[in-house]
Amino acid sequence: MTYCLAIISVDAGLVFCSDSRTNAGIDQVSTYSKMYSFCVEGERSFVVLSAGNLATTQGVIAKIKRDIRDNANPNLLSVTTMVDAADYLGDLSHAQQQKHTDGSAIFEASFILGGQIGGDRHEIHLIYPAGNHITTSKDTPYLQIGESKYGKPILDRILTPTTSLETASLAALVSMDSTMRSNLTVGPPIELMLYEKDSLQLNRHQRFDARNEYLKQLSSSWENKLSQAFNELPPLAWPAPSDESADQ
Amino acid sequence: MTYCLAIISVDAGLVFCSDSRTNAGIDQVSTYSKMYSFCVEGERSFVVLSAGNLATTQGVIAKIKRDIRDNANPNLLSVTTMVDAADYLGDLSHAQQQKHTDGSAIFEASFILGGQIGGDRHEIHLIYPAGNHITTSKDTPYLQIGESKYGKPILDRILTPTTSLETASLAALVSMDSTMRSNLTVGPPIELMLYEKDSLQLNRHQRFDARNEYLKQLSSSWENKLSQAFNELPPLAWPAPSDESADQ
Repeated sequence: MTYCLAIISVDAGLVFCSDSRTNAGIDQVSTYSKMYSFCVEGERSFVVLSAGNLATTQGVIAKIKRDIRDNANPNLLSVTTMVDAADYLGDLSHAQQQKHTDGSAIFEASFILGGQIGGDRHEIHLIYPAGNHITTSKDTPYLQIGESKYGKPILDRILTPTTSLETASLAALVSMDSTMRSNLTVGPPIELMLYEKDSLQLNRHQRFDARNEYLKQLSSSWENKLSQAFNELPPLAWPAPSDESADQ
Repeated sequence: MTYCLAIISVDAGLVFCSDSRTNAGIDQVSTYSKMYSFCVEGERSFVVLSAGNLATTQGVIAKIKRDIRDNANPNLLSVTTMVDAADYLGDLSHAQQQKHTDGSAIFEASFILGGQIGGDRHEIHLIYPAGNHITTSKDTPYLQIGESKYGKPILDRILTPTTSLETASLAALVSMDSTMRSNLTVGPPIELMLYEKDSLQLNRHQRFDARNEYLKQLSSSWENKLSQAFNELPPLAWPAPSDESADQ
């Protein structure tokens, strides 16, 4: 499996985070980056995160690059809005899945596409296997693909539409850490990319492998602070044990 | 959906926690208890938690009660080990599912069964829809059914095989709170049952509805402490933005 997420801060920009573990059965576990970036500085910046069948996602990314090289119409550098970019990616993904499906086999993939074109707003979109897509709202300033449930509670508690990029980055890393702690199919290296609104460039990228000191420090700090917070919770009062037995 | 969990403390006993929301489509949401207890004081105590198709789980619970009334062989008050009890419950569940299946329709249900018989060890078992079951281990002192992922990280961080019943109760409630916060299909009233090892009675039960003051206090206290813990995390250092553009 996979866990990728993107967070939008209306005021500040975008945060992208992805793990790197892929597996086809538990005895075939590999490491692949699931984060791709496409940028024409000063004009447009895109980040793509992928989850699902690796052959499909690699096929889609290869096709995006080929379309750019061949100046195909449309391609990621010719589309004029983020929605058009999401439509384009959805079409590629759906076509790639169809190509190898004989009716029964399913090679589904999901993507998150985020970025900004010129003076338009920065946006993130989640592209479903069918090719259709959704974006964020004021109440839901993030999107997830893959093993999304373990890391959702912390996002729901921390994120607001105006969270700073620094806070959103930490929330993403903590969400990723909780997921890795509870699910072996999500694992390092972890990649993190920040996009500053209106910068139209992508130069804030970090990659944390399993031995990364900061990631270890973050993980143990969070674990300690959680335990401490937990120990300070209001105790539950119990009435004196009643004489009546429980239902039978 | 549903979220139920049971925690074992080798030294202290068992904790059971369940939500009460059931739905058959989002326009048919109801409240049903998913916690059932069967006790002969001084001899044996069982708690059953249920998830899945409500007709199946109600059918199984009705059959357990009928078998006790009819003194059927076996029944929950005649079995001599917790494993036999889990086998029995698995057989009932499987039979109940088969009864209404015409090959295509699926009415699956899962159960957690916990308790103690006489001087045997207290145990918890998770019974899968197929009727087979698993128990806990030193490394995994809890079992979950239903929407288990949202509330798993906090259990993984807090629980050990010797956690006190008080701490385990709080961990269960926080795990439930995180799940309710992130998934609308899990909801109050929340039920909590503590079983003290070797007590062979079930008299520590609490039910928290949506307006329960303690549950609200616990939820907001945890939210505040999490935010505070989050704000104290070590900040992520970023190297000065590099000049090199990201991959294209």
